[in-house]
Amino acid sequence: MKIEAYKKITELLSRLRDKKPLIHHITNYVTANDCANITLAIGASPVMADEISEVRAMTALASSLVINIGTLNQLRLEAMLAAAQKANELGIPVILDPVGVGATPFRMEAVKRILGEVRLSVLKGNLSEIKAIYGIKVSSKGVDSTEILGADNYEAASTAKSLALKLGTVIVITGEADIITDGKTTFQVKNGNSLMSKVTGTGCMCTSLIASYLGSGGDSLTSALAGVVSMGIAGDIALERLPLASGFGGSGSLKVYMLDAIYRLSDEDIVKRGKIYEI
Amino acid sequence: MKIEAYKKITELLSRLRDKKPLIHHITNYVTANDCANITLAIGASPVMADEISEVRAMTALASSLVINIGTLNQLRLEAMLAAAQKANELGIPVILDPVGVGATPFRMEAVKRILGEVRLSVLKGNLSEIKAIYGIKVSSKGVDSTEILGADNYEAASTAKSLALKLGTVIVITGEADIITDGKTTFQVKNGNSLMSKVTGTGCMCTSLIASYLGSGGDSLTSALAGVVSMGIAGDIALERLPLASGFGGSGSLKVYMLDAIYRLSDEDIVKRGKIYEI
Amino acid sequence: MKIEAYKKITELLSRLRDKKPLIHHITNYVTANDCANITLAIGASPVMADEISEVRAMTALASSLVINIGTLNQLRLEAMLAAAQKANELGIPVILDPVGVGATPFRMEAVKRILGEVRLSVLKGNLSEIKAIYGIKVSSKGVDSTEILGADNYEAASTAKSLALKLGTVIVITGEADIITDGKTTFQVKNGNSLMSKVTGTGCMCTSLIASYLGSGGDSLTSALAGVVSMGIAGDIALERLPLASGFGGSGSLKVYMLDAIYRLSDEDIVKRGKIYEI
Repeated sequence: MKIEAYKKITELLSRLRDKKPLIHHITNYVTANDCANITLAIGASPVMADEISEVRAMTALASSLVINIGTLNQLRLEAMLAAAQKANELGIPVILDPVGVGATPFRMEAVKRILGEVRLSVLKGNLSEIKAIYGIKVSSKGVDSTEILGADNYEAASTAKSLALKLGTVIVITGEADIITDGKTTFQVKNGNSLMSKVTGTGCMCTSLIASYLGSGGDSLTSALAGVVSMGIAGDIALERLPLASGFGGSGSLKVYMLDAIYRLSDEDIVKRGKIYEI
Repeated sequence: MKIEAYKKITELLSRLRDKKPLIHHITNYVTANDCANITLAIGASPVMADEISEVRAMTALASSLVINIGTLNQLRLEAMLAAAQKANELGIPVILDPVGVGATPFRMEAVKRILGEVRLSVLKGNLSEIKAIYGIKVSSKGVDSTEILGADNYEAASTAKSLALKLGTVIVITGEADIITDGKTTFQVKNGNSLMSKVTGTGCMCTSLIASYLGSGGDSLTSALAGVVSMGIAGDIALERLPLASGFGGSGSLKVYMLDAIYRLSDEDIVKRGKIYEI
Repeated sequence: MKIEAYKKITELLSRLRDKKPLIHHITNYVTANDCANITLAIGASPVMADEISEVRAMTALASSLVINIGTLNQLRLEAMLAAAQKANELGIPVILDPVGVGATPFRMEAVKRILGEVRLSVLKGNLSEIKAIYGIKVSSKGVDSTEILGADNYEAASTAKSLALKLGTVIVITGEADIITDGKTTFQVKNGNSLMSKVTGTGCMCTSLIASYLGSGGDSLTSALAGVVSMGIAGDIALERLPLASGFGGSGSLKVYMLDAIYRLSDEDIVKRGKIYEI
């Protein structure tokens, strides 16, 4: 099973680089630049557009759609819904990143509307966000997860599976070990490191990678797995490259090196460095 | 006095890293990414949210609030006022960065409204901005200071002290030498270098650092001093790391290295490199 | 002719660094940070402001105005028109970057309005964008060019010349070889490399450089040529600096190094590295 997953991912990466799919993002202004850069680095083509008069037309040109609720406002929410409905009509996959959903009633109501009106291919969040959507009372604090997803969190995997079946979508929970499930098959990915959490937008960038794989014709589960493992491996490569022994290197360099690593990401990186486990 | 200041700063840095305070930013879209990254690098947790329906709820979760008027618009101003009033109600410290206040009547009116309706812990600007607020006619040009705050500008220190007493807030004026005062005690910080002015957002990032210290329970004067000296030291460390001897290195690398330096900032960096003078 | 062009560019760069012109940008939130940083790196001073109540006042302080339609919305369009008309009244040069103009009717209508109401000094786009404006049916896909401008595309040069004469403005088409023309004199620039297309905002940053030269008193043709060749040379220097032999380096580092190279850009870089041809 493990070997099959790696083969699917490397094949999908090749298709991505051949197809150069257009990924429409309706996202936040904090990490939009990083999302555009990682989408280009992996080999896809990003476009950010959120004016309601044009989002349907832009989505119609795209191969997948990202909706990310960081810095959400009322206007942007309406644009997301319009674009996502167009995507659903045309069979274009949609991924939702429910940034900070548990933090405010506005974000929770927005996500409820999106879940009610849009068919998602992938829903990706941290443990606080996924629990908030599942209806578990969480003590949210902003957009960073207040609950750490440890390496052996079977309760989290169980929540993810239930939510995947309930919503009919692939669920990704990012954390120390990431969980990816469609409710039937469940993977854990143990790549990545804690320094990544000191770089804003690593979650958003992971979403852009998943969308890039989705836009290349990958099925939802493989695309989600591919995006998560690519991001984690990039973090691992970037960490190794930091000049820590010389007393230098930190979160600033890590971001730059993660983009470099995604640009250079090879089949060998995926096969040799990937830590994918079916659970 | 000098020794006491360093001790207070290093203790506050420890509290910051223990507490990981949430810092709510209502800020501009030019430097929001840098502000988020430096907030994470120092050890706090940033959130950017500016939809008026949610800013009160977000501020209520936060340990401090940044309002920064770069790329201000009417909607964002209303959100700032709502959030800042909530912060005042709950005793959450507020810092204002009046970017380019002297440049247009819109910005000047906005700052007047903020000063009229909000109790600030810290007001931080460059010399042009602080003078404009003090009511001194300045020939402003955009958002960069047209007047350089030299190392011995006692007139600037006097303006800062008067404004601090008038507004009942700590005033920070950034420049070649920075001034930090509550009207009674006044510090000068001589860290930092001119290359930092070639990186957009060093001012905004300094504001995020001050907010991170404020959100860790520091008093306003110590927090302002800690933020200013941390930023300056990061600029000094970053400059030393540039490969200038090889004919490389410039403003692009400096930003990356400043983030690295803030991530790695140690008590020793503060004590050995800090150039704090009570004046 | 070639020698004369280099001399004009190096003289203009000196004037830029002496004058430090203020460049008002009404632009997108994806690359605004990069545009601000490259404007500072070359030696000018950026300001981003898009609230309609203040854009006229801000433009009146500026030496040139950038309007860039990435992430355009209705409000921002009105602000662009107001600012650009003020610029026209005051004789301040305006440059338009029609990002993704062929992708949606909203963008096409917006550009038609801008071209109808504003006198431009420079119009700069990729081949898809310029063809769309010229009225040639293109199969646009997002904001990246779907048509590659090769090194010997005389048809593109001919389109550029016709459009320059029709609109009475300098036209820049960026690609493998860039074309710069006022309809009478036409240059080709062969600097730059394909890795630059993997960094978001290289086009927007080039526009900021042209605007910085325009704001220093350069004529439109020289400013456009200077901006294009500066960007290409920065890309060339950045590429050489990547540690490719060690198996590292990619699009993340390239952006950082391009900013460094623009900060350090010398007359010698321009004269020795510039690949300018009159065609």
